[in-house]
Amino acid sequence: MVTKEEVLKVLSAVEDPEIRRNLVELGMVRNLKIEGGHVVFDLALTTLACPLKDQIVAQAREAVFALDGVTAVDVGVVEMSDGKEQGLATHLNRIGNVIAVMSGKGGVGKSLVAGLLAVALKGEGLSVGILDADITGPSIPKMFFPDQPRLTGSPLGVLPVRTGLGIEIMSMNLLLPHQDDPVIWRGPLLGKAIQQFWEEIIWGSLDYLVVDLPPGTSDASLTVMQSFPLEGVILVTSPQDLAGMVVKKAAKMARHMKVPILGLLENMSYVICPDTGRKLEVFGPSHAQEMAREIGGPLLGRLPIDPDITRLCDAGRIEEYQTDILAPVAKQLASRVLSTEMSPDG
Amino acid sequence: MVTKEEVLKVLSAVEDPEIRRNLVELGMVRNLKIEGGHVVFDLALTTLACPLKDQIVAQAREAVFALDGVTAVDVGVVEMSDGKEQGLATHLNRIGNVIAVMSGKGGVGKSLVAGLLAVALKGEGLSVGILDADITGPSIPKMFFPDQPRLTGSPLGVLPVRTGLGIEIMSMNLLLPHQDDPVIWRGPLLGKAIQQFWEEIIWGSLDYLVVDLPPGTSDASLTVMQSFPLEGVILVTSPQDLAGMVVKKAAKMARHMKVPILGLLENMSYVICPDTGRKLEVFGPSHAQEMAREIGGPLLGRLPIDPDITRLCDAGRIEEYQTDILAPVAKQLASRVLSTEMSPDG
Repeated sequence: MVTKEEVLKVLSAVEDPEIRRNLVELGMVRNLKIEGGHVVFDLALTTLACPLKDQIVAQAREAVFALDGVTAVDVGVVEMSDGKEQGLATHLNRIGNVIAVMSGKGGVGKSLVAGLLAVALKGEGLSVGILDADITGPSIPKMFFPDQPRLTGSPLGVLPVRTGLGIEIMSMNLLLPHQDDPVIWRGPLLGKAIQQFWEEIIWGSLDYLVVDLPPGTSDASLTVMQSFPLEGVILVTSPQDLAGMVVKKAAKMARHMKVPILGLLENMSYVICPDTGRKLEVFGPSHAQEMAREIGGPLLGRLPIDPDITRLCDAGRIEEYQTDILAPVAKQLASRVLSTEMSPDG
Repeated sequence: MVTKEEVLKVLSAVEDPEIRRNLVELGMVRNLKIEGGHVVFDLALTTLACPLKDQIVAQAREAVFALDGVTAVDVGVVEMSDGKEQGLATHLNRIGNVIAVMSGKGGVGKSLVAGLLAVALKGEGLSVGILDADITGPSIPKMFFPDQPRLTGSPLGVLPVRTGLGIEIMSMNLLLPHQDDPVIWRGPLLGKAIQQFWEEIIWGSLDYLVVDLPPGTSDASLTVMQSFPLEGVILVTSPQDLAGMVVKKAAKMARHMKVPILGLLENMSYVICPDTGRKLEVFGPSHAQEMAREIGGPLLGRLPIDPDITRLCDAGRIEEYQTDILAPVAKQLASRVLSTEMSPDG
């Protein structure tokens, strides 16, 4: 006689082809009944219009049929009810650490730093995702993909898009018909969208999720600081006093919200003149050390204005940019993951 | 016998020393009664704690007393009631034209363009104000004032701060105890603050009010486009494709909201190497012409990265920066004012 345990065991070997998680883990197996050699169960999908439905059902049926003693398999398909199953992704996701990249000021290079940091963390052998929390001015997809990629669904929700190096990315721009379509929403809707990116996207298992915050200290920053389990923020500034003033606002907000400041990065610090090799401080002399002291975090590095960065970011090829400026930060963050994994309660 | 008309006429010559508008025009004269040579009236102030109260009362009394046939003058002081008098500034202000500077993207130089445009309009002999609608990341005061200036009140509300050249400025940063204090507000509050900057600030008579919008297409942009009588928007971009994509979002929003696009300015177009004099396109080659075509507005000019701009802006001395890049736009905008003034219904 075949047992329920045996059936669930073989179904645990059947994976959703997109989420790469098995049907039992995903909570899709329902109403399992065994009468002699006759096995009956339902598979719950978020939508009956799921394009992979037939494939999943066939694989499940085949796996159970291969068990000794099974003479017949009936697989039903049911739709997950709305209320009970919501926020399912949150339960499935295993996100080790969340850090936000913030500056308060626009255009100082938050997205560049978020992107380069994710690449550096990936280089440390970690699994990494980027949640682009800049709903009205999202830059991340354009940096990582030459063409606007398409999001794919799964029985359980929306999957992030995977880059060439394997970084998982979610951004408002992936949901728009054209990448230059505006999102004309008032703040509370922005906060809600960010919340959904956290709760309803199937990130899977990630060592690090990097959150790219928009400028300002309003809805997006508030939502992320209030509802995400942030390990800390990395602040980005530029040499201008004017930028520094606004970055200090962001630092004060982080302190106010009790989010640790992991450090400061200065972007657009200088240009190397291609003719003379001289460093030109086109936005004025650096105040990075002084700023770092004032905000109470270490100076993590200074990034130049480099036409190569612009070219690669504009071409969706940021992953090809060679820099070791973020390697020390990435190594330090990676060591936290390892020490957590080695700790007895990790 | 003295008449009410005579009394009101002399009171029309008494000006509030700060607002430079007279007491009758400001609606401050109440309950005027004349019994023989005895004139009795009240002056309504927004607050009885008004520091200029005694001065205003004395001047009013003196003016009336100087009339032939007046033997006694009694001036009472009353507080304006809250509800009925709100939005009084709107009725007093005479703002000829309102234009917004926008980009969608942060850090491309909206505030710089708003500042330089205001200076250029002032150079055309116009009266100009800047409403800094970037509540969480305001840059305007730091560009125009070496030290954080103080706002002053008047019997009727808050006055903008006047720069060296006489540009009237209102910004959230003028209301904060420290210029690097964050404003941690959700979107609807941001919209409300901007609305108040429009309705409750005594701008007086202005030919042009320049509105400096924050990044994004959310609350601030929505509020300004929905409730201000905008003549149009000037869009600011940088050579990066990535910036261009976000600026196109702003252009689409303007079209969607039926706000005319007055033109495009490209900022950070190039750096002049101080050693060789060569133009270095450090953020890549310009796409300004192409962008202008796509957004359907003229290209108004290209601004370089210039260490002098940074230095002067950081020192609160933007008004000293010598450039004629914005002069043609300012001349064109000035000609609109003149043609309006000359038109029969102007």
